[in-house]
Amino acid sequence: MNLIILTDSDKLDDTRYLLQDYRAEHIRTVLKLEAGGSFEIGLLNGPRGRAVIEKISAKDITVRVENLENIPPPELTVDLICALPRPQTLKKVLFTSAMMGVRSLHLIRANRVEKSYFQSPLLEPENYVPHLIEGLSQGKLTRLPEVVVHDRFKVFFEDTLPGLERNSDIKLVKLAADPEAKGDLGEIMDKKASWLLFAIGPEGGWVPFEIETMEKTGFRRFTLGRWLLRVEHAVTATLSQLELLYRESGG
Amino acid sequence: MNLIILTDSDKLDDTRYLLQDYRAEHIRTVLKLEAGGSFEIGLLNGPRGRAVIEKISAKDITVRVENLENIPPPELTVDLICALPRPQTLKKVLFTSAMMGVRSLHLIRANRVEKSYFQSPLLEPENYVPHLIEGLSQGKLTRLPEVVVHDRFKVFFEDTLPGLERNSDIKLVKLAADPEAKGDLGEIMDKKASWLLFAIGPEGGWVPFEIETMEKTGFRRFTLGRWLLRVEHAVTATLSQLELLYRESGG
Repeated sequence: MNLIILTDSDKLDDTRYLLQDYRAEHIRTVLKLEAGGSFEIGLLNGPRGRAVIEKISAKDITVRVENLENIPPPELTVDLICALPRPQTLKKVLFTSAMMGVRSLHLIRANRVEKSYFQSPLLEPENYVPHLIEGLSQGKLTRLPEVVVHDRFKVFFEDTLPGLERNSDIKLVKLAADPEAKGDLGEIMDKKASWLLFAIGPEGGWVPFEIETMEKTGFRRFTLGRWLLRVEHAVTATLSQLELLYRESGG
Repeated sequence: MNLIILTDSDKLDDTRYLLQDYRAEHIRTVLKLEAGGSFEIGLLNGPRGRAVIEKISAKDITVRVENLENIPPPELTVDLICALPRPQTLKKVLFTSAMMGVRSLHLIRANRVEKSYFQSPLLEPENYVPHLIEGLSQGKLTRLPEVVVHDRFKVFFEDTLPGLERNSDIKLVKLAADPEAKGDLGEIMDKKASWLLFAIGPEGGWVPFEIETMEKTGFRRFTLGRWLLRVEHAVTATLSQLELLYRESGG
């Protein structure tokens, strides 16, 4: 854990928090800290700072937070559409999305998504939030990505998405990963974009009707490179390439 | 499996191969093929093509390969140095390296590498090769990466590496990932490079002495972005960013 995330439910008063779970264990056994010791923390959906240990016992740890500083918002807001993957893959996508600063994760139905995946207990917040928090903790971020499940493909692209766009002043740039596409992100990305939504297909890829629907609703297709990647690698690859392009454009 | 990899030990004669293991199972239960059906194959360290099923039983499958075509060599040869990670992470690094076309993987000692990792059975070829083949199968590549374990940090950078360079006509470009670095790959990468070696540190990062040794031996440091990534994500991120830069430079 590069950053220990504190939440409202850990709060004792304005500046003090009580830790009793795996985080207390981490402080005792990995960081090996005692009273007076300090470590990096982030307040969920809030600033980063340090926590100083006031009391430590085998059962719990009381800390006081200080030096809180807000994380500047990214200049490029990134939302991710992901054809709902199998639960083992979804855990990795949740982790990576949080680690790399995705704002919203839209999990959608697609032809090659197994119907049973929509019944996975992992789609309950109590089960997926811990994976997001683990990702924030790794990437040293604090903003919890929003997760939304959409169980109708066409409705999502033709109704839901246009609704989101209408409610925003900022132009949305929409991209879909497709190994058959000719252009890469460097070629097709609008460097002045400030809100970007990219779509990653299921194992086995999109079917032609899906590509068509996305293109009709304003998505441009891009290739990530020579290889065929798994879903979790495609997410990391896209976010890494965006980071490079965006830094280069002075973002 | 996007590509089923065939090896010499599967060979019956010049064009026919016998499959009896998890690949036969995949052909029967996932691809659901019968006699006369065909699928994409790659010959290990050789060309790609198709295999046509001649005989199929519950026990084994005989195929005939055809339409073999060599994969053009990449214009940028990429070697990876990775501080030896824990076995669970090493499996991912092996898979990703093969999937994304790394030529050689140098696993090195570093201050923050646990000594016990060097005793892992995963460092035996019989245990690591299957992970590499799984990666080739995903990325649709055939060249098996070479894996070399180096258990002395200084010796590797000061003796082994200069030895490799002396034996080559091509200039080697050496880069080390470091979250503290200022420049990213777009800023520091020599676009005319044809042989690149990049180093990924252990969880917890390099220690100052290691950074110093690498800089003294010609490595330039680069950042992957705003976040702190895990080893396996840093490998995917670097290879993805290189792919983007290299395509853009017309490589």
